[in-house]
Amino acid sequence: MAKLVFIRHGQSEWNLKNLFTGWVDVNLSEQGVEEAKAAGRKLKEAGIEFDQAYTSVLTRAIKTLHFALEESGQLWVPETKTWRLNERHYGALQGKNKADAAAKYGDEQVHIWRRSYDVLPPLLDANDEGSALNDRRYADLDPRTVPAGENLKVTLERVIPFWQDEIAPKLREGKNVIIAAHGNSLRALTKYIENISDEDIMNVEMATGQPVVYDLDENLNIVNKEKL
Amino acid sequence: MAKLVFIRHGQSEWNLKNLFTGWVDVNLSEQGVEEAKAAGRKLKEAGIEFDQAYTSVLTRAIKTLHFALEESGQLWVPETKTWRLNERHYGALQGKNKADAAAKYGDEQVHIWRRSYDVLPPLLDANDEGSALNDRRYADLDPRTVPAGENLKVTLERVIPFWQDEIAPKLREGKNVIIAAHGNSLRALTKYIENISDEDIMNVEMATGQPVVYDLDENLNIVNKEKL
Repeated sequence: MAKLVFIRHGQSEWNLKNLFTGWVDVNLSEQGVEEAKAAGRKLKEAGIEFDQAYTSVLTRAIKTLHFALEESGQLWVPETKTWRLNERHYGALQGKNKADAAAKYGDEQVHIWRRSYDVLPPLLDANDEGSALNDRRYADLDPRTVPAGENLKVTLERVIPFWQDEIAPKLREGKNVIIAAHGNSLRALTKYIENISDEDIMNVEMATGQPVVYDLDENLNIVNKEKL
Repeated sequence: MAKLVFIRHGQSEWNLKNLFTGWVDVNLSEQGVEEAKAAGRKLKEAGIEFDQAYTSVLTRAIKTLHFALEESGQLWVPETKTWRLNERHYGALQGKNKADAAAKYGDEQVHIWRRSYDVLPPLLDANDEGSALNDRRYADLDPRTVPAGENLKVTLERVIPFWQDEIAPKLREGKNVIIAAHGNSLRALTKYIENISDEDIMNVEMATGQPVVYDLDENLNIVNKEKL
């Protein structure tokens, strides 16, 4: 038996401003910091002791992890950061206001970009200064790996290899794991471990800063699921 | 050429109270937090870009690393925590007031415990509730590895294997490395890489929160050393 905990990062500065964020490295808002600390207190209250932590390479998820671990007295737990747990890359929509995008492209088109499983957003040009190709944290990747825009399907396809090779083996050893990440990377993991359909997954919402706790048996079947 | 940066953690709550700390997991003081943030701003100003971060499993060093990385815009850098970078274990003196210890054992004895290279402090009993054997973060270690009290010599002997197997190979690859740790684990590393004698090392002081930057050539010879 192992425990697996998901935490979606607390509110970010761009959630507040209603901007598409994706891989843009924005910080937590003050409320987001409080949400992350509250998550840590809930984990402490629940008595969950972690063996391994995973997060993305984006500040808002990393800080959420650190606040949650510190508040639960476990800042010493080993931590691995990976681009594979990053938020869905929102392509050329990144940094755009959601209302402006709706005015420009129409409500329906924006709804499709946000809620379809396999429609890609408009892609970001490789020469755009916001391209992840210009970001040192992705400099070791094959440039063909660096996305210019993702849907949930593509996000899932780059999240799951990390689950398979890193996270699942730890859980199979009975280690307790915490993953602090993003709405769509966690949605991808949720879809995979709960076997949710392409249609239904788009309606699954993860609340910011709320730990979701799975008890898994040794074959990684879900024995219990609880939101703290 | 690679850059190696040492940062001793900012002021802790027990530095303030004049207590022997060692492996006790005390937090940074408010001043300590400010020192760590200031270190990050200096690193940013110096334009130092890290590839890998190392720290101990003690909160005050981990938080110093996180503040320094965040302030320099590099919170995403991979981080490895290890007990081998912990502060010197101060044995039965841990949690004792330094003035009380001097009154009890005499100034000279306490001076010897603090400043001799190879005299051990009074050891902590394995049954003491403060024993690291009772701490989950050391639960995977061979119990014979868990110290009951260390001098600088013993500290060095457990720090250097980590240098040899983890840190030095990264530097040989030309990676820039930051190590946020403690007065004595950093003193051990300083002794080793600068080839300082057993006598002289005890007079080397590391200022809290001040980055020490080494430029190393491919054979790990020191080309330049600078305090920021």
